[in-house]
Amino acid sequence: MTTLDIPDDSLFGIDNLPYGVFSTADSAPRVGVRVGDSVVDLAATLGDDVFAQPTLNAFMAQGRDRWVEVRRQITELVQGDVDAAAVFAVDEVTMHLPVDVADYVDFYASENHATNLGRLFRPDSEPLMPNWKHLPVGYHGRSSTVVVSGTDVIRPCGQRKAPAQDAPDFGPSLRLDIEAEMGFLVGVPTKLGETITPDQFADHVFGAVVVNDWSARDIQAWEYVPLGPFLGKSFATSISPWVVPLLALEAARIDTPTQDPEPLPYLRGEEKWGLDIDLTVEWNGHVVSRPPYAQMYWSPAQMLAHTTVNGATASTGDLFASGTISGPEKNQRGAFIELTWGGKEPVQVGDETRTFLEDGDDIVISATAPGPNGSRIGFGDVRGRILPATPPVSTC
Amino acid sequence: MTTLDIPDDSLFGIDNLPYGVFSTADSAPRVGVRVGDSVVDLAATLGDDVFAQPTLNAFMAQGRDRWVEVRRQITELVQGDVDAAAVFAVDEVTMHLPVDVADYVDFYASENHATNLGRLFRPDSEPLMPNWKHLPVGYHGRSSTVVVSGTDVIRPCGQRKAPAQDAPDFGPSLRLDIEAEMGFLVGVPTKLGETITPDQFADHVFGAVVVNDWSARDIQAWEYVPLGPFLGKSFATSISPWVVPLLALEAARIDTPTQDPEPLPYLRGEEKWGLDIDLTVEWNGHVVSRPPYAQMYWSPAQMLAHTTVNGATASTGDLFASGTISGPEKNQRGAFIELTWGGKEPVQVGDETRTFLEDGDDIVISATAPGPNGSRIGFGDVRGRILPATPPVSTC
Repeated sequence: MTTLDIPDDSLFGIDNLPYGVFSTADSAPRVGVRVGDSVVDLAATLGDDVFAQPTLNAFMAQGRDRWVEVRRQITELVQGDVDAAAVFAVDEVTMHLPVDVADYVDFYASENHATNLGRLFRPDSEPLMPNWKHLPVGYHGRSSTVVVSGTDVIRPCGQRKAPAQDAPDFGPSLRLDIEAEMGFLVGVPTKLGETITPDQFADHVFGAVVVNDWSARDIQAWEYVPLGPFLGKSFATSISPWVVPLLALEAARIDTPTQDPEPLPYLRGEEKWGLDIDLTVEWNGHVVSRPPYAQMYWSPAQMLAHTTVNGATASTGDLFASGTISGPEKNQRGAFIELTWGGKEPVQVGDETRTFLEDGDDIVISATAPGPNGSRIGFGDVRGRILPATPPVSTC
Repeated sequence: MTTLDIPDDSLFGIDNLPYGVFSTADSAPRVGVRVGDSVVDLAATLGDDVFAQPTLNAFMAQGRDRWVEVRRQITELVQGDVDAAAVFAVDEVTMHLPVDVADYVDFYASENHATNLGRLFRPDSEPLMPNWKHLPVGYHGRSSTVVVSGTDVIRPCGQRKAPAQDAPDFGPSLRLDIEAEMGFLVGVPTKLGETITPDQFADHVFGAVVVNDWSARDIQAWEYVPLGPFLGKSFATSISPWVVPLLALEAARIDTPTQDPEPLPYLRGEEKWGLDIDLTVEWNGHVVSRPPYAQMYWSPAQMLAHTTVNGATASTGDLFASGTISGPEKNQRGAFIELTWGGKEPVQVGDETRTFLEDGDDIVISATAPGPNGSRIGFGDVRGRILPATPPVSTC
C-alpha cells in the first residue's frame, strides 16, 4: 500500500479529481483519476468494470447520483492507503481520448471574438449578426477528428483564394490558427423529441475539458458561405485528456455578463452557469494570451438548452465547445487571427515573431478555476505540434 | 426449403440485392437482403456472424473484395433453394436504421437548388456564391438524429423572425419542409492525414440510400449566418432502410454535367460517378415532384475527395448526402420552399393546397435507377409523417 503525495499547491488536489483514460506499457486503456502527479487506476481500486473500459462513456451515462457517489468514494480512497500497484506517475502513462465522441458542436459565444471575426471576415458589414444576442450561434463539427492532447497536427491542404486572385488555388494552409475554447461532455442522453432546460444542465453534463479548435483561416474564408465552416476546421480538434467533473466546478460558477436583450424563456434559468475559468495560451513555450472564460456571453447551460430545444437527441459522449474565448484586451484573444489582426500585427514569440502557425510550432493551452476555500483546480494542458503538409505538397 | 418469387418487373430483382437491418417479433435486429418482396436472413443463410449484428458497419468495413464475394454468394443463393425459415415477407418485418452513423455531412450539389435557395434567402445578392463552382459546398449535420424511414417527425420548435418583426419569437416551425436527396455510406475508413481521390470512391463507399433532410425554413433563415444551418436541420434526417450497393449501380453511372471552370486536380478523376437516379416525391400520396439526380453538378466521388482532402478521417458509417436534388423544371424541385417559391405559390396536393408541411402530412420519397439489360432497380422509400409540436406548445 502507499499514500498519495498531494502538494498543497497542486492543481490536482482532492477538490479536483478529474477523470481520464490511460494505459501503461503492459496494460490496456482504462479509466483513472488524477491526484497530484499520480494517476490512480479506478478499475483496480473501486473494483467496478465500468472503469475497465477504454472510454468514460459508460460511467458518464450513469448519471449525477452515481457521479456524486463515485466522487465520494474516490475522495475517501485517495486520502487513505492505496494499492501501490494501482498508482502510476502521470508522466509514465499514455493518455487517450477520454470519450467516444458522439456529436460535436462548436459555439461562438464570446462577444469579443464574434465581433473581431466579423470585422476581419466581413469588413463592410456590422460585425455582429442580428441573431447573435438572441441565440448561441453554433454549428456541427467533425466528431471523428477530435483527438487527444499531444496528437500532432498535420498542416491541412485545401482551396485558398486571396482577394487579389481570380480563382482559388490549392495547397497547404498559409493561415493556420488556433482557437482556445472550453468543451463540455454530455453524460446522460435524451430521447428524440425531449429537451434539456438550462436548469437541467448538471443532470446531463458530466464535465469539462480544454479545447483547441485548430482552424485554417484561408480555407475557411473561401468555403464558409453560405453553409458555414467545413474543411477549415474538420482536420483536427484537440482536447485535454483530463475531464474535470462539473462537481469540481461549484466554486467557479458565476453569472454570465448581462444579457441584453433578455433571452427568450427557453434560454433562461435560475442556476448560474457562467464559469470563472482562466486560460493560458503558450506558443513555443511563451505565453501569448490569457483568455478569460468568465466573460463569455452565453453559458454552457444555454448552449445545451438551445441545442436540444428543437427535440434533437443529446447522446452520451456529445461534445460541445464554447467557441474561441476572447476578452476585451488584446492579450486576452484566443485566436491568432485576432491577436495579429488578420496577420497584419505580428506578435513576439520569444526571439521570433509570428502571425500564423509555422511548421514545428508547439501550442499548449491550459486552464485553471477556483476551487473551494481558496484552492485552485487545473484542467491540465491541450498540446499540439504542427507537422508539415504531407507528401508531396504537389499532390496534396 | 423454398424458392423465391421474383416478378420480372420487380425493382428488387437479382440485379439489385440491397442490404438492410430487420427484425421479427421474436428475433433481434440482423442483416438481411431484399429480393422481390422477401427479406432473406443473411446470418442464417450465409452462416457468417458479421450479418448477425444490428448494423451493417462490420460488413461495410470489410472492403470491396469482400463486398463482391458476398454479392456473388447471395446471387447464387437467391436463385436456388433457400431455407424457408430464413425468408420473411417484407411487410412482416420491422426495418431498423441500417448503420451506426459516424459523421454526417450534407452537401449542396444541385446548381438549380443552390440558385433557387440563393434567390429566396438572399434576394439582393448573386444567388450562387463565388465558391460554388470551385468546390462542393457542404457542412456537418447531426448524426444522432439520422432516423430510419417510418420514424415520425415531431414539428420542431425554435426561434423565428419574420422580416416585419423587430425581434424573434419562439414556437413551432411554420415553414417545415423536406429536402429530397441521395446519401452515400462509407465502408472502408481512412486514418487521420490520409485522403481519398475521386477514383478511389468505390474502394471506400459501400452503397447509397434515399435521404429526406427535413428542414425548418423559418428557424434556418434566422440562425444560419454566419456558421450555417443548425437547429433548422438537426431535429431529424430520414434515410431509406435498404442500402443499394454501389456494385448494383454500374448501369446508372454517367458523366456529371459539364463542370466549368474545370475543377482543381484533386477533384478530377477518370471514373464516371454521375448517377442516373430518378426520385419521386409524394405528398399525402400525390406525386408533387420528380427530381433528377442525373443533373447534380458535383459527383459523390468529388464530395468524398473534397471531405478528405484536408486529411480528415473517413470512418465506417460516415453518411454524406447530396443536398436537395432539383432539376430545371418546377416539377423537378426537391424542396417545397422551391416548389412553392417561398410559400407564395401553393401547390395542389390532391383536393387540397399546400405551401409547407401541415401536421399529419405524410411524405414518401423513392428512387429508381437503371440496372443491367434494361432492368430497373429500386431504392425503396423514405417515409415520414409530421406530428404536432409536443407538449405543450407554450413551453416548447
